[in-house]
Amino acid sequence: MTEQDLMDPQRQPTLAGVERAAQKIAAILPPTPLLPLDIEGTTIWCKAEGLQPIGAFKIRGGWHRLTDLDDAQRERGVIAFSSGNHAQGVAWAARRLGVPATIIMPEDAPRAKLENTRALGAEVITYDRMNGNREQLAADLAQETGAVVVPSFDDPWIVEGQGSCGVEIRRQMQALTGLEPDQIVVCCGGGGLASGSALANPDARIFIVEPEGWDDMKRSLERGEIVPVEPDPPATDCDALQTFRVSPITFDILSARDATGLTVSEDEVHHAMRVAFEKLHVVVEPGGAVALGAVLAGKLPLTNRTAITLSGGNVDNRLFAEIIAGT
Amino acid sequence: MTEQDLMDPQRQPTLAGVERAAQKIAAILPPTPLLPLDIEGTTIWCKAEGLQPIGAFKIRGGWHRLTDLDDAQRERGVIAFSSGNHAQGVAWAARRLGVPATIIMPEDAPRAKLENTRALGAEVITYDRMNGNREQLAADLAQETGAVVVPSFDDPWIVEGQGSCGVEIRRQMQALTGLEPDQIVVCCGGGGLASGSALANPDARIFIVEPEGWDDMKRSLERGEIVPVEPDPPATDCDALQTFRVSPITFDILSARDATGLTVSEDEVHHAMRVAFEKLHVVVEPGGAVALGAVLAGKLPLTNRTAITLSGGNVDNRLFAEIIAGT
Repeated sequence: MTEQDLMDPQRQPTLAGVERAAQKIAAILPPTPLLPLDIEGTTIWCKAEGLQPIGAFKIRGGWHRLTDLDDAQRERGVIAFSSGNHAQGVAWAARRLGVPATIIMPEDAPRAKLENTRALGAEVITYDRMNGNREQLAADLAQETGAVVVPSFDDPWIVEGQGSCGVEIRRQMQALTGLEPDQIVVCCGGGGLASGSALANPDARIFIVEPEGWDDMKRSLERGEIVPVEPDPPATDCDALQTFRVSPITFDILSARDATGLTVSEDEVHHAMRVAFEKLHVVVEPGGAVALGAVLAGKLPLTNRTAITLSGGNVDNRLFAEIIAGT
Repeated sequence: MTEQDLMDPQRQPTLAGVERAAQKIAAILPPTPLLPLDIEGTTIWCKAEGLQPIGAFKIRGGWHRLTDLDDAQRERGVIAFSSGNHAQGVAWAARRLGVPATIIMPEDAPRAKLENTRALGAEVITYDRMNGNREQLAADLAQETGAVVVPSFDDPWIVEGQGSCGVEIRRQMQALTGLEPDQIVVCCGGGGLASGSALANPDARIFIVEPEGWDDMKRSLERGEIVPVEPDPPATDCDALQTFRVSPITFDILSARDATGLTVSEDEVHHAMRVAFEKLHVVVEPGGAVALGAVLAGKLPLTNRTAITLSGGNVDNRLFAEIIAGT
């Protein structure tokens, strides 16, 4: 691929791109730990991405995208829309590179995510999640200012950047056990982390996990074409996974890999958060706990080469306290 | 030193012993992360020992001690007394090495610590913390069975083993920043982690932190001789730091290094637990949060080469929920 091709926003993400992202990220961030967890005699491996500086894996895609902007683009700045973690990922990278960032966030995003995004120096614009059109808002603003839109998953850099998590998983499991993962269980909103991690682990079986009622990727994989979330989806604590429709870029990768879709209930998510608290001593937000929820509920056959993502830890104090105190 | 000297329980812990322990521990456990935390513009480095398999640094001393037992000793087994984390450290090492372990624990130890110690296969005997004499109990039992007593801090192996945490801190900060720590802030019960980390970092200034009213190491350092906790010490959530009297082995090291003693209130501990939750997304038990509590309360001058220990994460759900929900 020529350098020009690499800078084409219409290109497909590749394993080579994932490896390039992993190299750029390794230069500034140590790998998050891959923690062993015993599940009735089988050890699985949990990637604790809540320990990233912004509390989620989204710092990966943000860094890979923004470091590939040219000088003129850096000057005009970036725009992102996000329920919170992507917002912080882009804001963190933007601050470090001195790039102006505008972030469009749902007005009901967790307080912690709104505050942290502002604290990183980004300008935050809020919208109504159920009625507003964030893509349109972003496009209009970009038209006006010439800023580059950084989508949260529908973008080759973002998929490759998130895939660096899968590279670390592969290398860490190899170092710890001598074996690479034979299956990876990944939370799925738009599918950036899932598809990137799939690229990074060409031989692993891929499971994607969504909250009940927000299972558009699962249904799309089963149908063989992209279908949106069904009307009036239920309330969920998994704010990070409330995506109405996935994109061809993530769907095509997961579909080609014959990924299996799973769903979890709110109770299963809460149980997983408690287990992560008690056994691993890490804080996991609801959306970050769905993969563990699926494993604990026995929704897939376990192997001792199973890796899962605990993708983020940005959860409001009171909600976390309620969930942890419940039994 | 000859091999015989190395096996002498009366020997003094040394930097060479700490390095030997660090090597043994590196062979079975990846280093826990050293997480950056911004405190009003200064970055400090937090060693997240709650991410150890047993949720605390105590796995280090347990492993270093038990791997140095000879065959006859391994057969007769080990006895430890502990409020919980040392119990789990010894039990974990014992199970892995196939050594029988009996653990004497206070009957009011956190439920999680009692349960986890039993789950690791150790036989647990409980006693009354305020009236029982755990040292005597252990000595009597050892007399009867020929088992080796593994004290929680008054032992050269334990100090050296815990010191491996200080070795990792030094190496990780060097890798991340190019500099070694110039000061280390460590929680202090009996002083094993503090004195071991001091040995591991010969050029760093050492601060030890205790809960108010349980500040026997601080008062001992100020007096130049070991003094016990004053009568009727206050209630504290820091169960891991409720030590009535430190030992010459830890006191002498810290005294020779001119370590500074600090204390923190329960409120300061709770605040630190909330900050670790919100900013680092790790679960820290009360006793593990005192160093961060001292830093956040401005009790020492900060440098950007400051390292602190977050020494464990074994805390009951309800207590953690109450503390996190409070503001």
